[in-house]
Amino acid sequence: MARIVMKFGGTSVANIERIQNVARKVKIEADAGNEVAVVVSAMAGVTNQLVQYCSDISAVCDPREYDVVVSSGEQVTSGLLAMALQELGIDARSWQGWQIPIHTNQVYSKARISTIEGDAMVAQMGAGRVAVVPGFQGVSSENRVTTLGRGGSDTSAVALAAALKADRCDIYTDVDGVYTCDPRIVTKAQKLDRITYEEMLEMASQGAKVLQTRSVEMAMKHRVRLRVLSSFEEGPGTLVVDEEEIVEQQLVSGIAYSRDEAKITLQNVSDRPGVAASIFGPLADAAVNVDMIVQNVSADGSATDLTFTVGKADLQRATQVLEARKEDLQYSKLVADDNVVKVSVIGVGMRSHAGVAQSMFNALAEKGINIQVISTSEIKVSVLIAEEYTELALRALHTAYGLDVA
Amino acid sequence: MARIVMKFGGTSVANIERIQNVARKVKIEADAGNEVAVVVSAMAGVTNQLVQYCSDISAVCDPREYDVVVSSGEQVTSGLLAMALQELGIDARSWQGWQIPIHTNQVYSKARISTIEGDAMVAQMGAGRVAVVPGFQGVSSENRVTTLGRGGSDTSAVALAAALKADRCDIYTDVDGVYTCDPRIVTKAQKLDRITYEEMLEMASQGAKVLQTRSVEMAMKHRVRLRVLSSFEEGPGTLVVDEEEIVEQQLVSGIAYSRDEAKITLQNVSDRPGVAASIFGPLADAAVNVDMIVQNVSADGSATDLTFTVGKADLQRATQVLEARKEDLQYSKLVADDNVVKVSVIGVGMRSHAGVAQSMFNALAEKGINIQVISTSEIKVSVLIAEEYTELALRALHTAYGLDVA
Repeated sequence: MARIVMKFGGTSVANIERIQNVARKVKIEADAGNEVAVVVSAMAGVTNQLVQYCSDISAVCDPREYDVVVSSGEQVTSGLLAMALQELGIDARSWQGWQIPIHTNQVYSKARISTIEGDAMVAQMGAGRVAVVPGFQGVSSENRVTTLGRGGSDTSAVALAAALKADRCDIYTDVDGVYTCDPRIVTKAQKLDRITYEEMLEMASQGAKVLQTRSVEMAMKHRVRLRVLSSFEEGPGTLVVDEEEIVEQQLVSGIAYSRDEAKITLQNVSDRPGVAASIFGPLADAAVNVDMIVQNVSADGSATDLTFTVGKADLQRATQVLEARKEDLQYSKLVADDNVVKVSVIGVGMRSHAGVAQSMFNALAEKGINIQVISTSEIKVSVLIAEEYTELALRALHTAYGLDVA
Repeated sequence: MARIVMKFGGTSVANIERIQNVARKVKIEADAGNEVAVVVSAMAGVTNQLVQYCSDISAVCDPREYDVVVSSGEQVTSGLLAMALQELGIDARSWQGWQIPIHTNQVYSKARISTIEGDAMVAQMGAGRVAVVPGFQGVSSENRVTTLGRGGSDTSAVALAAALKADRCDIYTDVDGVYTCDPRIVTKAQKLDRITYEEMLEMASQGAKVLQTRSVEMAMKHRVRLRVLSSFEEGPGTLVVDEEEIVEQQLVSGIAYSRDEAKITLQNVSDRPGVAASIFGPLADAAVNVDMIVQNVSADGSATDLTFTVGKADLQRATQVLEARKEDLQYSKLVADDNVVKVSVIGVGMRSHAGVAQSMFNALAEKGINIQVISTSEIKVSVLIAEEYTELALRALHTAYGLDVA
């Protein structure tokens, strides 16, 4: 007997038939004698509709009221799933964020979970009653509904698993696990049986959409045993685990990509102390997140080009901020380019092996792909290339690192 | 300066434009220096969709979970209206049933309000902040969401007005007041400036859909000054008041009708003590509400016909119950008829005037309309007639009682 948290995303609960399918999956775990808490998203499309209502009323709406509106989608699913479980003879009830309660801070619409009480819920789970919990929502200390930001249901599930000291947190989604690369592009991509927290974190933050980055961070911190698997097909999925649990580590475990990047180059920036701060300070003030940064040493010590990437959605704001400060910053020209993609190879194995980056550069060069920006961390190498080469680059790298399915 | 409760129904908040229209109406009252609480229904159609989801999952779903699901519609509207008010520069916030709190009993899906605390809300209203309250919902002593049954938002508004000792409770709807008769049928119907609680209660319970019966009962009990007016047109609407406030009382104030009735006749029922109890007991056990009942004295003291009406929706269940007990009850034949309509003339003036019923019978006889069942109370006379005569009967009675607009 184990205590488990199961999480089902929006496509898994998109209509009544799918909610009934979810109920059957939960029943299997409950019938096996497990204590089960189920975290659910809103039915696919519902949250978008609710967000649309809010933005139709106000460009900058009160986040407290936004949370009242958008949290209702998960509330509906939680009630419906509890009913569907009861219909299968499983004792179940829904627990809203304010009932458990899931305490958060007061940063409405992007709240962070502080503590989860859950004693009453755990007692009922112990008595064999499945707990159905709407994801994405909590309650602030002023007793108002909060939400955790888009994709927050993954985070709810992992936080609940940590608080309940669950033996496992199973994330059910529309794919059957984590792949070495996006299988829609690289048909030879393989499903991974296991992946480390660190790798999963890089995969998520470098563009793989299977898990929300924050939820992986939290799982890593609390050592929650995370599993990604399909709502629609049978299969063990992918287990996200500690490095020690993986006996033979691949050099590279996966290749991620993100089309959400845009590149800005400032030409002829004066090469003196404090220039970087004077550029990135105003961007930070405007809430523009800067990712990769490259600055060359200037030949004569006077001026250089500075290149960096921002989120595509922030590109317009970033250029406005920089152009407004053109005189101060003393650059000659700003060149923006959103036809770029960031490709990352990821693997904890590269910590102890040299040559991983070199293999990447060679593989891309062989296909005639120019590398615009490079950035590295302990377990990943990312490059920025022209967007049109995305598929070519992913397939070449997948083959070069020996990841192609046999 | 006054303290007022404003209530807007589903058609008044059916889309974003209409919610913005509601916000403008609330702003007028707030700008006039009033303390305002606004009670809102779900956007038109939303509750039906949510109820459909529940019945798709289960024919007899857990009412606790049903309440979690269906209460979300009002929750959404409350958040959206608070935003729309803020957008007009009005300080506003939503208060869910569990936040105020509105305490109810534990009869989920048909809960009754026990007490409303509201101190925190009143304090904020006193500081000029409009309170937006989702109708239809409350919270039970086990801290779970309850709903008040369909049409419960009127009841929420009146209960809130009573608890807040509001000077006025304005019910905004899609008609501009209470009419002497349904103006879609009787084009000469007049809008009433005032109507007594007693009359409004009879009008509502005899079929007029402008206010929910329970809300009128509650308004009468707590002497809440109720006003019915249009969300879409300007105008003072109809005031529901104490009898003393109406100087010159009409003999008949209005004519209501209900097509929701069905008639059952049991032929040759034995005429002995206890028979009525043996018939209506099992119907009550099956939750069938019986309305009009007619039993004649039998000529020879042995057997008689018994006729009564039930809700059309209950007809099948009622006949099943009675046919299953045919041997016990010893009737010869059960005749069911759902092609009937109940027409009622209502007026507190008839307490002190004879001949009101006689005028009704004459007017119907002149048009050749046969009366099947008659029932009377202190301030109303109801008759059951064939449904095809509905319009003819309403127009004839409206003229006979001198209610036609000049």
